Amino acid sequence: MGQCAVSYLSAQEGIELVAKAVKGDDLSALIHDYKADVVVDLTRPEAAYQNALTIIAAGARPVIGTTGIREEDIIKLQTKCRSEKRGGIIAPNFSISAVLIMKFAAELVRHLPAVEIIELHHDKKKDAPSGTAIKTAQMISEARKEARLAAPKDPTTLEHYPGSRGGKCDDVPIHSIRLPGFLASQEVIFGSQGETLSLRHNSISRDAFMPGITLACQRVMDLTELVYGLEKLL
Amino acid sequence: MGQCAVSYLSAQEGIELVAKAVKGDDLSALIHDYKADVVVDLTRPEAAYQNALTIIAAGARPVIGTTGIREEDIIKLQTKCRSEKRGGIIAPNFSISAVLIMKFAAELVRHLPAVEIIELHHDKKKDAPSGTAIKTAQMISEARKEARLAAPKDPTTLEHYPGSRGGKCDDVPIHSIRLPGFLASQEVIFGSQGETLSLRHNSISRDAFMPGITLACQRVMDLTELVYGLEKLL
Amino acid sequence: MGQCAVSYLSAQEGIELVAKAVKGDDLSALIHDYKADVVVDLTRPEAAYQNALTIIAAGARPVIGTTGIREEDIIKLQTKCRSEKRGGIIAPNFSISAVLIMKFAAELVRHLPAVEIIELHHDKKKDAPSGTAIKTAQMISEARKEARLAAPKDPTTLEHYPGSRGGKCDDVPIHSIRLPGFLASQEVIFGSQGETLSLRHNSISRDAFMPGITLACQRVMDLTELVYGLEKLL
Amino acid sequence: MGQCAVSYLSAQEGIELVAKAVKGDDLSALIHDYKADVVVDLTRPEAAYQNALTIIAAGARPVIGTTGIREEDIIKLQTKCRSEKRGGIIAPNFSISAVLIMKFAAELVRHLPAVEIIELHHDKKKDAPSGTAIKTAQMISEARKEARLAAPKDPTTLEHYPGSRGGKCDDVPIHSIRLPGFLASQEVIFGSQGETLSLRHNSISRDAFMPGITLACQRVMDLTELVYGLEKLL
Repeated sequence: MGQCAVSYLSAQEGIELVAKAVKGDDLSALIHDYKADVVVDLTRPEAAYQNALTIIAAGARPVIGTTGIREEDIIKLQTKCRSEKRGGIIAPNFSISAVLIMKFAAELVRHLPAVEIIELHHDKKKDAPSGTAIKTAQMISEARKEARLAAPKDPTTLEHYPGSRGGKCDDVPIHSIRLPGFLASQEVIFGSQGETLSLRHNSISRDAFMPGITLACQRVMDLTELVYGLEKLL
Repeated sequence: MGQCAVSYLSAQEGIELVAKAVKGDDLSALIHDYKADVVVDLTRPEAAYQNALTIIAAGARPVIGTTGIREEDIIKLQTKCRSEKRGGIIAPNFSISAVLIMKFAAELVRHLPAVEIIELHHDKKKDAPSGTAIKTAQMISEARKEARLAAPKDPTTLEHYPGSRGGKCDDVPIHSIRLPGFLASQEVIFGSQGETLSLRHNSISRDAFMPGITLACQRVMDLTELVYGLEKLL
Repeated sequence: MGQCAVSYLSAQEGIELVAKAVKGDDLSALIHDYKADVVVDLTRPEAAYQNALTIIAAGARPVIGTTGIREEDIIKLQTKCRSEKRGGIIAPNFSISAVLIMKFAAELVRHLPAVEIIELHHDKKKDAPSGTAIKTAQMISEARKEARLAAPKDPTTLEHYPGSRGGKCDDVPIHSIRLPGFLASQEVIFGSQGETLSLRHNSISRDAFMPGITLACQRVMDLTELVYGLEKLL
Repeated sequence: MGQCAVSYLSAQEGIELVAKAVKGDDLSALIHDYKADVVVDLTRPEAAYQNALTIIAAGARPVIGTTGIREEDIIKLQTKCRSEKRGGIIAPNFSISAVLIMKFAAELVRHLPAVEIIELHHDKKKDAPSGTAIKTAQMISEARKEARLAAPKDPTTLEHYPGSRGGKCDDVPIHSIRLPGFLASQEVIFGSQGETLSLRHNSISRDAFMPGITLACQRVMDLTELVYGLEKLL
């Protein structure tokens, strides 16, 4: 992932790659030596918060891809950035398509309140549902409540095999498929009288994150605070 | 459904509709009076077995669409038909496509052992998974055992919302979606190294059963026994 | 379609069906006699403009589903409505999902400029592509131009069978499938580095138009002009 | 592709990788020196025929992935293999799923004669339709003729944008999508009264060919002739 970002970012106009850091490097010194404007961190979740602090303290802008920073720590980082009028971005998902699907799903549920989610991932994934599916369900549920719409009642009174109707996250059923041949896909299906509408996202390679990371590197220069989530930039 | 069959069958070359029976009619007398070769019964499951007996006794061939006859009663009907060299067909599903999908799914699993089922039905359906999905899972599981292939181990060790990974029917996960805008759909997804293969069936109207019923009416004339399942005719 | 609207609208709270008109009826007299607030017209395209004039002159609000009114006639109707501060709606498509897909497609193309359209209709449809697909392509193309994005160059240099790459409508390739078993479906597929995002709409019955017609009847009461397109109400 | 095969085949039980050849190597000498049973050739189409001759003459069995050998040359290779009772396999496509879809499509068309093909490939592909789609269409067309079924008449009488209805290969319409984010996908859609049935294949990585190549290496040992097409081994 890091290697992939290195070659992709190097090829983008307006972006110059000044240094690559590996574990053990003095990040702060590198930022000073190379006068880095932005530092992209796609490494270990447990290091993300500490790295963010280092990056900000050294005068650069963090672009961090992780789900691993606690909410209270994000707030601390935001306070710090705001006081220095420094831009930053932390995103659990750098896929522009995945983020747009969430945004649209939350918009669609106001018109079409009956909705379920299918997410399909490779057969090495240990957790279910995916973080993206949970986030999508939460955004849908919140938007439905704001529009004062009720979640439709599940018609099922007889479940022959428990679990058939999926896992309910905030009243949104999520169905998790685990098969080789998928990387990461998600479908959000809305049903209405006589018709259905689906949003489907298929990732086939980690390259899918590169345009989002690039966008973040470009836009973070104009920000004066740290934002959470790629959707804030779209 | 009966009404739909009446108009469809009437329009088929080689088939003549000689009579329509409603509840309370003397089925035996109608068969004799109109010299019916075949009787199509799409009515109440609880009447299906008794109707089949009446049809056979009156000298006609039953074409019955139901999931409601007990296995032991089917065997009795088969014995009766065989002794009279009379054809008959009882099918839980008269959709040719649905039946072909099951047949192909059982064939595919020998080459691609990792498989899950998604079935999508309207929001009035009370049971889950659908009968078709359960039958498909059973056929897949049986074929996999015959080929001495193991079902792949579920990688999930952390299920955030119980049920996310579906209901397991004979080691095949089934995911049941219930939304308005669907009538009856099913997708059987096989995953393998770097690729997936899906079989998808969408029904949008009960018309979908008509070609299968027509085929049964035509083919039952040449049978000398009662067969269970439309797949026997394909 | 008319019959379907009659039963659906009758069942909606806040809507009272006061009269049904058939060809030959004096529409103006009916509106006066029954003090109709709104008149729904789903009939012949060639009558739509004249009917709209009659409805407005009689003091009611037109809700008209047609693609058959010429642009100059729509402008005349809009002028008339505006001068009387009367609401009205004319829509080529009353499916809320179809309209939302167009809206989202136009929004998505700003982030994901590479896009193609597949539309799938029943095998009685004589024209290709569908009106909805053409409208979608035009909206996409317009949004792409506004965002100053170029349509991606078609990589095809060798077309073994002419037509394989679809029909190009304003630089957007459209692929039209005609098969029994479909009513009306459309998929808009966006491709990007390592991922794709699709919007898919499936209609399985003309019921799909009913929620949109209902919405139009409700909202037209608060309008003071005639709007074209259901999207104006969403 | 070659590199990928090297690591995959090395890891398979029952297969021992004895040598890797690059352009310029003396293939014949390598086969003798390392006593190779099987030679896998995934290189340049123009070299495939000559390589096959060399491999057979040196006493090994060729497993060749190419679409580039002329029919008359395949016949020559088959004659040679038969006279030496030597196994061999030449396949235009080593994806087991792609091959199974073709086989099933040819079977399905006997029951469901109305069919169209959509193929979706990356935006670097220069030819359309794909070789796989053309082969699929030819197999469908041949099976339809054998079953004495007519191709359904295209209902389209008005094509607003030429090409919308696809390219017709032997009466089967093919629709070719070219977008980034796809590697190679194909959907074969069958339509019937009130229902549709689709076969869909998605490749996301060249790994997809590895199980087919492995199967070929294993099975070629028991063959006594050269077969064309992976389907012969399934």
